[in-house]
Amino acid sequence: MTELKNDRFLRALLRQPVDRTPIWMMRQAGRYLPEYRATRKQAGSFLDLCKNAELACEVTLQPLRRYPMDAAILFSDILTVPDALGLGLYFEEGEGPRFRKTVRSEADLAGLNDIVAEDDLGYVMSAVRTIRRELNGDVPLIGFSGSPWTLATYMVEGGGSKDFARVKAMAYDKPELMHRLLTLLADAVADYLSAQIRAGAQAVQIFDTWGGSLSAAGYREFSLPYMQRVISRLPSEAEGRAVPVIVFTKGGGQWLSAIAGCGAQAVGIDWTTDIGLARQLIGGTVALQGNMDPSMLFASPARIREEVATILAAYGHGSGHVFNLGHGITPGVDPDHVTAFVEAVQELSPRYHQAGG
Amino acid sequence: MTELKNDRFLRALLRQPVDRTPIWMMRQAGRYLPEYRATRKQAGSFLDLCKNAELACEVTLQPLRRYPMDAAILFSDILTVPDALGLGLYFEEGEGPRFRKTVRSEADLAGLNDIVAEDDLGYVMSAVRTIRRELNGDVPLIGFSGSPWTLATYMVEGGGSKDFARVKAMAYDKPELMHRLLTLLADAVADYLSAQIRAGAQAVQIFDTWGGSLSAAGYREFSLPYMQRVISRLPSEAEGRAVPVIVFTKGGGQWLSAIAGCGAQAVGIDWTTDIGLARQLIGGTVALQGNMDPSMLFASPARIREEVATILAAYGHGSGHVFNLGHGITPGVDPDHVTAFVEAVQELSPRYHQAGG
Repeated sequence: MTELKNDRFLRALLRQPVDRTPIWMMRQAGRYLPEYRATRKQAGSFLDLCKNAELACEVTLQPLRRYPMDAAILFSDILTVPDALGLGLYFEEGEGPRFRKTVRSEADLAGLNDIVAEDDLGYVMSAVRTIRRELNGDVPLIGFSGSPWTLATYMVEGGGSKDFARVKAMAYDKPELMHRLLTLLADAVADYLSAQIRAGAQAVQIFDTWGGSLSAAGYREFSLPYMQRVISRLPSEAEGRAVPVIVFTKGGGQWLSAIAGCGAQAVGIDWTTDIGLARQLIGGTVALQGNMDPSMLFASPARIREEVATILAAYGHGSGHVFNLGHGITPGVDPDHVTAFVEAVQELSPRYHQAGG
Repeated sequence: MTELKNDRFLRALLRQPVDRTPIWMMRQAGRYLPEYRATRKQAGSFLDLCKNAELACEVTLQPLRRYPMDAAILFSDILTVPDALGLGLYFEEGEGPRFRKTVRSEADLAGLNDIVAEDDLGYVMSAVRTIRRELNGDVPLIGFSGSPWTLATYMVEGGGSKDFARVKAMAYDKPELMHRLLTLLADAVADYLSAQIRAGAQAVQIFDTWGGSLSAAGYREFSLPYMQRVISRLPSEAEGRAVPVIVFTKGGGQWLSAIAGCGAQAVGIDWTTDIGLARQLIGGTVALQGNMDPSMLFASPARIREEVATILAAYGHGSGHVFNLGHGITPGVDPDHVTAFVEAVQELSPRYHQAGG
């Protein structure tokens, strides 16, 4: 494998000294970029784009051509695993993801495919290998998956949901069935992320997009332990380097102490959390990733720069911070505002990493 | 005025001893009830229903005929104030609230009507008076309004929003304009709630439905101080009794200490907060209202009862807790499950209020 030219992101995740705070953006390969929209049109459907290694590689690299990001993230969807399990993922224009089948009973659970990620999600591994080749060691590549609970919400509901009525009724009324589904998903996600790591992913992020919909007790029962199970099954090294894991529970700001104990090297925080308080609470044991409000990118470049300064100051001196948004970038953002965002992090962060700082 | 026969709710808000934990439900007069849907059809539009004092009274009382709730809540909408300010509120079926005009500039702000709630929102005061007469002292009546920030989100966006791009861009880029809008709204809301209290509301709740969309710093700048301004302008007594104020910021669980200092007697908490921890943190200064996950009502009556027991135990002994959901009841809930919920609170809570407990 080619030597990694910029390892700032990996070093910050391990809380090792860096020259400046690394940055990438959740959903950086996405609809706010005109070149993404063009490739997406060329590919056909969103899923066609995910399943075409060359085009998935192309959109993964697009934001890196515009912005000096410190990491690339695999272009894919969080729902590839349930799709491989046999649920039939599709996207209705403007409606979000849907499944042709749902999982609501013992029989539905028994009817899921046995999968081996290496084969059944081979298209993802092809994309990872293609991207690694094209990146040529410029920056590390992040692999990812949805968390077991987040995958379960879509599998039980059959798509997105406002109130998670069905999946919560199942969790509350048939906890044993829910725990069996979550165990199956944790093992599938662990196999999937392990395969991504073997194919070349140098860090992985678990997107627990809907963990924050649970009660405090529900989160500790249905989401966190299954992310812990995933993490415990991942190889801790590849290519002679540690492979850090980032856990991101949107809306999980009240549960940071518990999250910090799940085995991940880094915890993603959304913009509702004060990053200075988060560092006080858990910064001694994990790195933090985040957390500018994605809607701040609708403000002026000057205001964006001010906000970056505020977040950097709130985190303070030393390593252990990966700059990011507090959630995926919103379609409709002006790409020039992203330039201002990335430049601000590059220009304002070095002072927080000076020797003795 | 008639003597109040059941003041458990008011006493709990003031952390005075009670025989059992009082209960009511946010949106208890709502679509899950077939009799509500029938009256709604009879009224015409949702707004017609709000503006008809007799029918608004009828739907306010409907849940009390089914369930022994400890409070009634005025049937109205959180957006009546911006409507009176001249924005033209309307509802698209299945789309939520919309405004014909928006507020995005100095000129828009200058074009808002000067209002006096007593006159310009007279239909709300008629409803309050009618309901008080019909309640005949059985339980207290809660008045309410949206918070200044929450009203501003709808006024700037022109309706609901997923990412609050416009209102946040305005807050971030034109903070002075935003602060003028919020000041105007705080004064209008204070006038509106004061008029409700004069008309007969015995407690008031400020619904800060979208405060939780802000960053920690944004919340302290754009939402909390304006609720504080509202509260400071309300009469603290009416009919010889204290009129308690409840503040409910959905998604505000990380900011409870700050919220507890805003002048309200009670703080509403959503289901993502551990009510035991919340009591440890702020229970010495304010009452707590909440916080069962509304989706728990889709589970079985036995499971609902278990959850009520868990929440009561987490809060522990003594007064200062008003049982409620952590958010409005979801349309589609079986009304019999609400029976199980209310009965569980009635039957399981007295042990937490015994002398010496």
